[in-house]
Amino acid sequence: MPHPLFGPEVQQMLHENDDEGLKAFCESVHPATVAETLAEQFSVEESWKVLQHTGIREQAAIFEYLPHDTQVAMVGGTGRERMAKLIEQMSHDDRVDLLRRLAPQVAEGLLRLVDEADRRDIATLVGFKENTVGALMTTDYAWLPANLTAAEAVERLRQQAPDRETIYYIYILDEATRRLLGILSLRDLILAPRTAVLRDLMETDVVSISAHDDQEKAAQQLAKYDLIALPVVDADGRLVGIVTHDDAIDVVQEEATEDMQRQAGVSPLNENYLEAGFLKVWRKRAVWLAAVFIAEMFTFNAMAYFDDSIKAVTVLALFVPLCISVGGNSGSQAATLITRAMALGQVRPRDWFRVVRHELLMGLALGLALGAIALVRARFMTPGHVLENVGRPPADIWMLTLTVSQAVMAICLWGSLVGSILPMIFKRVGVDPAVASSPFVATFVDVTGIVIYFSIAKIYLL
Amino acid sequence: MPHPLFGPEVQQMLHENDDEGLKAFCESVHPATVAETLAEQFSVEESWKVLQHTGIREQAAIFEYLPHDTQVAMVGGTGRERMAKLIEQMSHDDRVDLLRRLAPQVAEGLLRLVDEADRRDIATLVGFKENTVGALMTTDYAWLPANLTAAEAVERLRQQAPDRETIYYIYILDEATRRLLGILSLRDLILAPRTAVLRDLMETDVVSISAHDDQEKAAQQLAKYDLIALPVVDADGRLVGIVTHDDAIDVVQEEATEDMQRQAGVSPLNENYLEAGFLKVWRKRAVWLAAVFIAEMFTFNAMAYFDDSIKAVTVLALFVPLCISVGGNSGSQAATLITRAMALGQVRPRDWFRVVRHELLMGLALGLALGAIALVRARFMTPGHVLENVGRPPADIWMLTLTVSQAVMAICLWGSLVGSILPMIFKRVGVDPAVASSPFVATFVDVTGIVIYFSIAKIYLL
Repeated sequence: MPHPLFGPEVQQMLHENDDEGLKAFCESVHPATVAETLAEQFSVEESWKVLQHTGIREQAAIFEYLPHDTQVAMVGGTGRERMAKLIEQMSHDDRVDLLRRLAPQVAEGLLRLVDEADRRDIATLVGFKENTVGALMTTDYAWLPANLTAAEAVERLRQQAPDRETIYYIYILDEATRRLLGILSLRDLILAPRTAVLRDLMETDVVSISAHDDQEKAAQQLAKYDLIALPVVDADGRLVGIVTHDDAIDVVQEEATEDMQRQAGVSPLNENYLEAGFLKVWRKRAVWLAAVFIAEMFTFNAMAYFDDSIKAVTVLALFVPLCISVGGNSGSQAATLITRAMALGQVRPRDWFRVVRHELLMGLALGLALGAIALVRARFMTPGHVLENVGRPPADIWMLTLTVSQAVMAICLWGSLVGSILPMIFKRVGVDPAVASSPFVATFVDVTGIVIYFSIAKIYLL
Repeated sequence: MPHPLFGPEVQQMLHENDDEGLKAFCESVHPATVAETLAEQFSVEESWKVLQHTGIREQAAIFEYLPHDTQVAMVGGTGRERMAKLIEQMSHDDRVDLLRRLAPQVAEGLLRLVDEADRRDIATLVGFKENTVGALMTTDYAWLPANLTAAEAVERLRQQAPDRETIYYIYILDEATRRLLGILSLRDLILAPRTAVLRDLMETDVVSISAHDDQEKAAQQLAKYDLIALPVVDADGRLVGIVTHDDAIDVVQEEATEDMQRQAGVSPLNENYLEAGFLKVWRKRAVWLAAVFIAEMFTFNAMAYFDDSIKAVTVLALFVPLCISVGGNSGSQAATLITRAMALGQVRPRDWFRVVRHELLMGLALGLALGAIALVRARFMTPGHVLENVGRPPADIWMLTLTVSQAVMAICLWGSLVGSILPMIFKRVGVDPAVASSPFVATFVDVTGIVIYFSIAKIYLL
């Protein structure tokens, strides 16, 4: 469906109390599209009015697709009884997400009205820390004992009528202990002879994960093994939940966003850019900016150390921003490439020697190119009037040219090396390598670049 | 399965010609794990020797999980006949990926031995441009006519025994035209009354996509609607293929990697960092570095313009790197936040006013913090010996302090503004906003930052 704009049409139906039309909108349009239309073009009150035209299950399906802040606003706009009913119908992972976002007294008030079994289930899931598999998983899955035949299994599933995608793998459990014995895809169940027993059909080499693992690991496993769902087991091998494929995409997006933000020197926001609180964002940016700013102050010390050189040959100062920027740029290229390659598992700590060798050669090759450009620039395009007091005539302009082009070359090489080594060192000592970000590397190379530049200048000019 | 190290064990089995053991390894371990073991610890020759202990279908399943370069090497290490058989068994999307990577004459030689139907199918898929939905989709899906009953449909599926995850949605086609009439999940089919007709069971509000759309769009749709597979239709609404959920994760990872690389000023590599050719990587980095370097040369012109000021008050030059770095850092924060928010659809071009207002206030708030730090730094920590010729005594040190702290504030604000506006302008004119990357923004702000700094200095000191 090529995303039609339902907004005005639904507005009209609301206005005319067209119950039939609103029911059709809620039930025949994809819940994600209904949610999008409501969130973008309707007030909380109007949204509830639209939703009441369909059953509670369908309402829950639509509700799950609403943006988080809209969900919270919706809770405020309806009675507790109705919301509790809706919560009972929501997917187990989505409702826990919602309850985490509500004010504690609101969440408690709702929970008191929720069915006993659902309340217990929520309590278990809420107990897991954010970003763990436990906080991501759902406890809504299809399981069967091992001694059924294929035909009996299909019949049992028809009676249980489990939810949505969670039916595509069937988990075979030991009835007494709930230990996970094996797994059977719905496909294999359908294709199996009707009298075959599950125990003989099931796959026993099961890929599983612990509820305390990082959510990123679950996403990686789902991606690596092309799974629709990944079982979560406890220390005794008992099935406690599953992580489904749609969560994996969300996790991958989230982790990429966090890494990008870290690499630009922002602590991860974990929120929509326009919705995040001003003060919170300010803090997350100011901390980094201030840290980098204070580190960058050493550029003053480095420059001050060469104070006399600058006084003697003022033109040297004019090339400083150009020369040190080279290091920041080549460094941020290297740091980003290597950090991302490590995040994707393409580069492991044991590859450090190959990486450093690669960046050494690459820095050299890049430095040669930039050095050549710098040579032309410094020799032929430096205006005469700024040159009046360059070193000892008659070699002045050539000496300056050699200084600038060699400094550019050296700093480019140095930037690549620092940019490749720092993320690996960070990883080794257990810090997220994305923190060895572009601003961090650039600052480090700015300070050291000044020293490199003036040291070369001293050889030729002073 | 907590990733056991099979390597040494399998090596032993190969050595002892333990056919039973090797067969068990190929068939009871997950194909992704078998592939990982082979790729990391065995030669091409040994890998083929291991693989021959299982049937051609299982071989194909394992082969698909091998890294791309290993796949290419494996093709070189076996006869064409055997490889052609394997290709017939591979997933339709994976085999096209492989054939694209082979030398044209090798691919042609293989294709000649492949079954007529498979060859036609490959020819269709190879025709789509890289990064389109067509290049990502598989033509291997389950379809049924609309007039079957649920029981007949299950029977038909049992006979067709379609492949893996592609069975979980059943596409209902018009038999004559192959137009897509509706879609039915395997879950709903199983749960339906056995005599119900597919026409009445199927969902007709189908989310679909065109083969010529960008692959990123397919991934977004799969994520948005939590689908396991997305049907691909042509202009006449005929089903031409499906994109499966596992491809969506790969696409999301790939796009995030490309954006990160662009933001660090590297043209996307599209390859494993350690495997990409040296010259190719050099070109992708050198082009950007050189462009930014040439742009950064204007820092020299900006400095040269204030030549006399520097000669008069040398200490001014010493604060230049510090002051301009602030703009680069605040700019790269803003640019990264906004570029990523646009990629995730959180910020749309129509939000530009909110974004600019937000960054204006944020730049101001961040600038105040940094300005305060700069004030302390400039006033109390500037060594006396470099101060000897600062402006008109007795106001010297305070004048310098005011200059530096106000410049830092102004440049921080300016960086945030440029960093937020540039990506949106790029997007508006149809250039990837990630290109308005950190180095690009930093360079722009470096040049303008020098002008801001010296303009403020002129007010106080000169």
